[in-house]
Amino acid sequence: MQIAIVLYPGFTALDVVGPYEVLSRLPDAEVVFVAESPGLVTNDHGNLSIYAVEDLDNVPAPDIIVIGGGPGQMQQMADGKLHQWLRSVDRTTQWTMSVCTGSLILAAAGLLMGRRATTYWLALDQLADYGAIPTDERVVIDGKYAIGAGVSAGIDAALTLVGLIAGEHVAQAAQLIIEYDPHPPFSSGSAATAPNAVVEDVKKMLVGSV
Amino acid sequence: MQIAIVLYPGFTALDVVGPYEVLSRLPDAEVVFVAESPGLVTNDHGNLSIYAVEDLDNVPAPDIIVIGGGPGQMQQMADGKLHQWLRSVDRTTQWTMSVCTGSLILAAAGLLMGRRATTYWLALDQLADYGAIPTDERVVIDGKYAIGAGVSAGIDAALTLVGLIAGEHVAQAAQLIIEYDPHPPFSSGSAATAPNAVVEDVKKMLVGSV
Repeated sequence: MQIAIVLYPGFTALDVVGPYEVLSRLPDAEVVFVAESPGLVTNDHGNLSIYAVEDLDNVPAPDIIVIGGGPGQMQQMADGKLHQWLRSVDRTTQWTMSVCTGSLILAAAGLLMGRRATTYWLALDQLADYGAIPTDERVVIDGKYAIGAGVSAGIDAALTLVGLIAGEHVAQAAQLIIEYDPHPPFSSGSAATAPNAVVEDVKKMLVGSV
Repeated sequence: MQIAIVLYPGFTALDVVGPYEVLSRLPDAEVVFVAESPGLVTNDHGNLSIYAVEDLDNVPAPDIIVIGGGPGQMQQMADGKLHQWLRSVDRTTQWTMSVCTGSLILAAAGLLMGRRATTYWLALDQLADYGAIPTDERVVIDGKYAIGAGVSAGIDAALTLVGLIAGEHVAQAAQLIIEYDPHPPFSSGSAATAPNAVVEDVKKMLVGSV
């Protein structure tokens, strides 16, 4: 089962590494990091680079694709090589997955028309601009589209997907292998639970990057 | 504030990328990935490579160090360049952090003598071999040592650390930025909560790699 994980400049590392760490536990998983050009792809902070092994064109029929988000998403919204590849491979994927603002790229490529989807909490309204139905849930499964909310939600989305693909036992094993028994020291992971002052500060910090 | 994240062959990606995504939100964070030799360092599954920008020797006085675990940890237990660097920089770090079996490397380097520490759930007993006090908690803070349990626990440990360094507001903002409002679809993240059959299967799967 070939799993293609898409990288582009300015991606958020945890968006892709969270799902990677879960999906790579699927039986017969063969993961390949892909990008428009193979080689090092640098993230949003400019200090973490992951190696893209293959050009998009060399991975024409993956079983699963994963695309994450990050500030670099904004440079991936115009039609071009990435959108063409997404549309092409989506015809035969078993699952098309995104995390965070990666869903905006899928939507801009025309793949989420009429589909329920989620994205980064600050970008949820934008989904409707591309014909998707904004859904304020952490993980949204609509047909073969598995869509996670912001950054860390990719872990929950990937575990959900492993359960659907390989069954509960395999997904539970993946969860135990990554010891995913979360105990955040604060309750600030969503705009609904974070203190108002924190929400307002984060909104200011992220102006122009979502 | 310089944060050095250590890579070695066979590391587990989420061990380092989880804390990275949180700690890089510290004010004035300057993150550098380091390794014995700079260049690409490949993970436990052999299909994800992160670029180590600097040789250990070129980062002689980081404020924070982070070392993760993974099957490759077993090749890092003998004294040598990495242990010497860890002992050297630990003299002046503000915080020395590990995730998963990274704590076994710190302990083998002699840094956790008499300290409370945790590690990957399957490796907890091994800490005592190096003079540390095995502590079955997800995050253990003992003095300037911030020790996370397995893989995903690095996110909780890093949020705890950000709270200690920069205060609750900054940590809560980091949590909201990565939308860390975990809702795992299963309750299988620890040996105490996973079904027995899952625990037994995972133990068999991981023979020889922990």
